[in-house]
Amino acid sequence: MCFIRLLHHHFINLYGGIPPWFGSSCLIVLLRRLCASVFTCSETPSSLVPIHSSASMANADSVSVRIFSLNCWGIRYLSKHCPERYRMLGQLLSKENHDLILLQEVWSEKDFLYLKQKLASSHLHSHYFKSGVIGSGLAIFSKHRIHDTFLYRYSLNGYPYMAHHGDWFGGKAVAMAVISLGSLTANVYVTHLHAEYSRDKDSYLPHRVVQAWELQQFIRHTSVGADVVILGGDLNMHPQDLGNRLLRSYTGLRDAYLETAKFDGCEDGITLIADNPFICKNGLAPFEKGIRIDYILFKGSPKTGIHCDSMSTTKGSVPNHPFPYSDHEALTAQLRLESHVPAEAGDDRQLKTHNFNAGNLAELVDIMTEARTEVKVGLHCAERMRYTAARTGVMGLALLFLELVIAAVPWLALGAEQPFPSTSFYLLAALCFAILLTTSLLYIFYTMEVKSLQGAEDQMRLAVGSLQEKLRGFHASQPLSDPQKPPEGPGPGAFDPEE
Amino acid sequence: MCFIRLLHHHFINLYGGIPPWFGSSCLIVLLRRLCASVFTCSETPSSLVPIHSSASMANADSVSVRIFSLNCWGIRYLSKHCPERYRMLGQLLSKENHDLILLQEVWSEKDFLYLKQKLASSHLHSHYFKSGVIGSGLAIFSKHRIHDTFLYRYSLNGYPYMAHHGDWFGGKAVAMAVISLGSLTANVYVTHLHAEYSRDKDSYLPHRVVQAWELQQFIRHTSVGADVVILGGDLNMHPQDLGNRLLRSYTGLRDAYLETAKFDGCEDGITLIADNPFICKNGLAPFEKGIRIDYILFKGSPKTGIHCDSMSTTKGSVPNHPFPYSDHEALTAQLRLESHVPAEAGDDRQLKTHNFNAGNLAELVDIMTEARTEVKVGLHCAERMRYTAARTGVMGLALLFLELVIAAVPWLALGAEQPFPSTSFYLLAALCFAILLTTSLLYIFYTMEVKSLQGAEDQMRLAVGSLQEKLRGFHASQPLSDPQKPPEGPGPGAFDPEE
Repeated sequence: MCFIRLLHHHFINLYGGIPPWFGSSCLIVLLRRLCASVFTCSETPSSLVPIHSSASMANADSVSVRIFSLNCWGIRYLSKHCPERYRMLGQLLSKENHDLILLQEVWSEKDFLYLKQKLASSHLHSHYFKSGVIGSGLAIFSKHRIHDTFLYRYSLNGYPYMAHHGDWFGGKAVAMAVISLGSLTANVYVTHLHAEYSRDKDSYLPHRVVQAWELQQFIRHTSVGADVVILGGDLNMHPQDLGNRLLRSYTGLRDAYLETAKFDGCEDGITLIADNPFICKNGLAPFEKGIRIDYILFKGSPKTGIHCDSMSTTKGSVPNHPFPYSDHEALTAQLRLESHVPAEAGDDRQLKTHNFNAGNLAELVDIMTEARTEVKVGLHCAERMRYTAARTGVMGLALLFLELVIAAVPWLALGAEQPFPSTSFYLLAALCFAILLTTSLLYIFYTMEVKSLQGAEDQMRLAVGSLQEKLRGFHASQPLSDPQKPPEGPGPGAFDPEE
Repeated sequence: MCFIRLLHHHFINLYGGIPPWFGSSCLIVLLRRLCASVFTCSETPSSLVPIHSSASMANADSVSVRIFSLNCWGIRYLSKHCPERYRMLGQLLSKENHDLILLQEVWSEKDFLYLKQKLASSHLHSHYFKSGVIGSGLAIFSKHRIHDTFLYRYSLNGYPYMAHHGDWFGGKAVAMAVISLGSLTANVYVTHLHAEYSRDKDSYLPHRVVQAWELQQFIRHTSVGADVVILGGDLNMHPQDLGNRLLRSYTGLRDAYLETAKFDGCEDGITLIADNPFICKNGLAPFEKGIRIDYILFKGSPKTGIHCDSMSTTKGSVPNHPFPYSDHEALTAQLRLESHVPAEAGDDRQLKTHNFNAGNLAELVDIMTEARTEVKVGLHCAERMRYTAARTGVMGLALLFLELVIAAVPWLALGAEQPFPSTSFYLLAALCFAILLTTSLLYIFYTMEVKSLQGAEDQMRLAVGSLQEKLRGFHASQPLSDPQKPPEGPGPGAFDPEE
């Protein structure tokens, strides 16, 4: 299927994911760059951090929870030193005694079962989440009872013909486990989003934005009853990437690295370091030291306060071992949960999960507008690819028809006087059939991609309309409380929700 | 791809979905029959109906909501009288002024847009849910603001090569909309499960059971913060079918038909009636009059009581029109919501969604055991199909190799003395390639099916273990309160949760 890959690269290389017929493409590229530069300048966007009043505590009851998260890079027979690394990991985990262990890229169930056996005495409860062709690669080990689990498969996850990237076959998903931590109910999530293979020409960006959108939807809607929400995983996004901002601002999840009282680990909290022997340094450019793409995020509830007392990452090499645990660094966070009777219970459903004020609501609307733009770029690209597949299919059909006509002419006119060029005939016919079959499959695949992107964009449009109405309500009720926001006019993220 | 269909039918026809190598197949069939007969005998299983104490009401504030649900059978150019039926439906809906309209099988977005335009003045808010190759077919129209939407695509939904059934291409899903009904927040769900084409040899049963499992998971986890939960749709399950019992008993959803104070419609509430001109009467056998497979289900919350004041269905023909709205009957339910301050708020997360007692908890465990058996049957069938695909692929490869050897012998030994049988050579080679390609695709597809079935079974096992522990807690704390249950021993649904 090399020619499909060529076709794909053709678009990516020539137009950076945006076909030329897409009228406002230049505008969108500029918007993309602008937004990226605006949001990359500050590491701690204070207005995005949700408001959790810890002043309303009473009857404080403190619980401490240690969480571990690692992308294990566990592709059997392909990842280097895979069995040795799992042995090292098993030793570490059985010794360290974490409350929750959130693993990604455990592609083989055998490796999960090996870890389960190693942790049989320390972590009684575990779950391995299956999906896709290979699996989701997600696993949870817990010292505390897992009451319930749920898996949400992302609607988009790369392309099956990009087999060398392999993401499509992994059936990427977000897994949830409902776990009791003392008297508190914790919703624990683990996920792994589509990898970024090129930062400049990232053809998977719309897919990753849709995954981030679905991830925030899933967490927001399933965590309403939870006292504590914890998400660990390889998000494959830099701290200020669009999907990451969307996730944190809509759910109110807080980044353990940014919130921790003590930190011990790699500089700037990077989790994919240039010194790692398993990764290609050139792939990290222009980030000389490395990038931060693995996270532990958390939030409490009106009933429960949550704080990050300390956080650490592994720093590449492991003492007394020739190589590190994985191509990613492992994260450990020590969270402190404080259950208390809330001073006041919000009546609004939205408030149950996240306290919005006019400032972060306006910011969320802006982020969602940016996300919609990105999804639209992906949509136009997918529509173009589908059109190309259809056109190539029609050409294959025309070629087959032409061949049959050419073959029929000597057969009708000359009989058996001239030898029939059967070799060429059958080879050409086989080629036509191959083209027809491949383009049909591609057409079906791209149609599914188009539908998923359209669906996500529709849902974003609706949600942004609702948020804008809420924002107008804020402005109407508090005309003087937020001097930074203009009291009238369409505002930065304003557009017709039904456009 | 006829031979694949033949292979599929081969299993279905010979073994009724269960291959003979599956050791305990007879036992399972007997179990299936037994369970079906036990549960079909009573239409109203009182112990399954959740306990909603309406005695604790105070400050009652009543809201009335009218809900409409219909499977529109809207396959453009294939469904009979499709445009005329949409015109009739548009007239009905704009006149009847329902609060919520939940539609299924609106396969074309053009038809959705037609209805949207017809209902522009009466129903300001609407959403069309896109997924799969064709779409999810799901649409919601509302007089009340839709704040948020979310779509969960079922992990299993038939087979792509069963194109004449078409379910796979539909991208079946459950759609959710968060809607404000006065001061109350309603989570409104609409869904359409895989069709049942043969009741005796239902090869899609494991898929439908997994869909029902995922449906209850989705509703249970996303509706915790809602005051009211409403589900409408074509479940393609009879009232006492396994998936239906699983859905109702785990979520606590109540069937509007069984709960309504007044009913006006077809006998026994059937929604697929034998008199409908669009359906094949033979397909309904042995149910002479028809079957009830479309539902409006609902439940309240500690904050909100909910009652069904009246319910009606269309009765086949429509006055002044030559044919009915669809091949299904339309459902209309009038619900009354009463918001009140709860007398006591449960502390347990489970209690927030559904009040379990020892009786219905034990029943739920039994239902889940039955569902696990059904999923295991499907799993073994899928594994067998995958094995067959692999074996056929290897045979194709061997044939290709053999052909190359046979072709090489005369080429090496005889030179050009005898004419080379090129026609046969190329035809056979093309056949081998076709076999290899098809079996590879099938192998990938069956692997995904196996993973999804295994995943569902794993999640069921974990959940049933947790429920059994809760049940043991009930028995330990109330040894004398439930005389029908034996105080000790493994009980009807007891088995090792980690087996």
